[in-house]
Amino acid sequence: MIKRRGLMLVLSSPSGAGKTSIARSLLKLDSQITMSVSATTRKRRPGEVEGQDYFFMDETAFNTRINQGFFLEYAEVFGHHYGTPLDQVNKTLQSGHDVLFDIDWQGTQQIKARARQDLVSIFILPPSTAELEKRLLKRAQDSPDVVASRMAKAADEMSHYPEYDYVIVNHDLMASVAAVQTILNAERLRIDRQSGLSDFVKHLRGSA
Amino acid sequence: MIKRRGLMLVLSSPSGAGKTSIARSLLKLDSQITMSVSATTRKRRPGEVEGQDYFFMDETAFNTRINQGFFLEYAEVFGHHYGTPLDQVNKTLQSGHDVLFDIDWQGTQQIKARARQDLVSIFILPPSTAELEKRLLKRAQDSPDVVASRMAKAADEMSHYPEYDYVIVNHDLMASVAAVQTILNAERLRIDRQSGLSDFVKHLRGSA
Repeated sequence: MIKRRGLMLVLSSPSGAGKTSIARSLLKLDSQITMSVSATTRKRRPGEVEGQDYFFMDETAFNTRINQGFFLEYAEVFGHHYGTPLDQVNKTLQSGHDVLFDIDWQGTQQIKARARQDLVSIFILPPSTAELEKRLLKRAQDSPDVVASRMAKAADEMSHYPEYDYVIVNHDLMASVAAVQTILNAERLRIDRQSGLSDFVKHLRGSA
Repeated sequence: MIKRRGLMLVLSSPSGAGKTSIARSLLKLDSQITMSVSATTRKRRPGEVEGQDYFFMDETAFNTRINQGFFLEYAEVFGHHYGTPLDQVNKTLQSGHDVLFDIDWQGTQQIKARARQDLVSIFILPPSTAELEKRLLKRAQDSPDVVASRMAKAADEMSHYPEYDYVIVNHDLMASVAAVQTILNAERLRIDRQSGLSDFVKHLRGSA
């Protein structure tokens, strides 16, 4: 095997398009990719493990790290900060493993600006508006008002699909997981990710 | 299914790396891709069919067409001209089908200059110099001198691998065919090839 540099795989989608289920299946099926662990300022919930679910820190520590350029991307969601530690991602990529991100278009734009060459971005679309609404209604905890506002938000989020490398229409969970794996396996064969190629070809040519 | 624009798949490799076998298997397994038909100035051989194996024409006709920009790429091999008619390729791409090219790095550079966005280029490498030599020796018609000169030419050709999008090391024919199919299927999911996406998302958002 030729040594390779890992890649950052971003999955984005409007809420209800099935992204989380796709990510979960992918992590089970592909041993070369792991979920990125975010730093957050929100309180630790029972059962959550420091360094595995999140890196927990207070606002002051988080803001200091923003200023130090510690985060590959960060965002504020419902009053809490979330960010991806850059050095941790870099270590994973250098070891030849891939990192999965479940972030929105704004986080994707931040990564694009800082590490375009390592980024592979996929936008997941629902097969139809009716299907999207059905999936959002299934979540028992959401009131009709919340569903309506999420539908409007989904319409807005979908306008950002052209900023991504690939689009998958999620008709069927396992077909979509297979499509993500296909993209992942193809991207691993890209010349600029096969970091051991130069030595391999030098050897082939030298002894030819 | 969302309407898509076809792509041009270029396979290049030093002679003896197994490219022709890979191309043949791919054409059998994937009904969405066809071989590009070249124009040539060489004489028609028994059994060859005009418009299927080649478009046969004389030097004058070929040179006129070069000047008219008729060819996507062209080359001279052993005193004969070979070229790919641009309009024929465009028609195939517009119909949502892909076109396979078995050309060298010079032809690939010509396509890159004229139609970068439609091009997907893969360089096939032999697993080792010993294996390459073995494969070249298998071709009974080649004298040891020819093999030696081909080995030298192979070393030269391999220096062009960084000009390609992907590299596959051909350890095993069927694994390499699968890798080409993986790349092909991933590239078909690229945003800029899914020409029907804009209408699909407009519909999703409009009714959302």
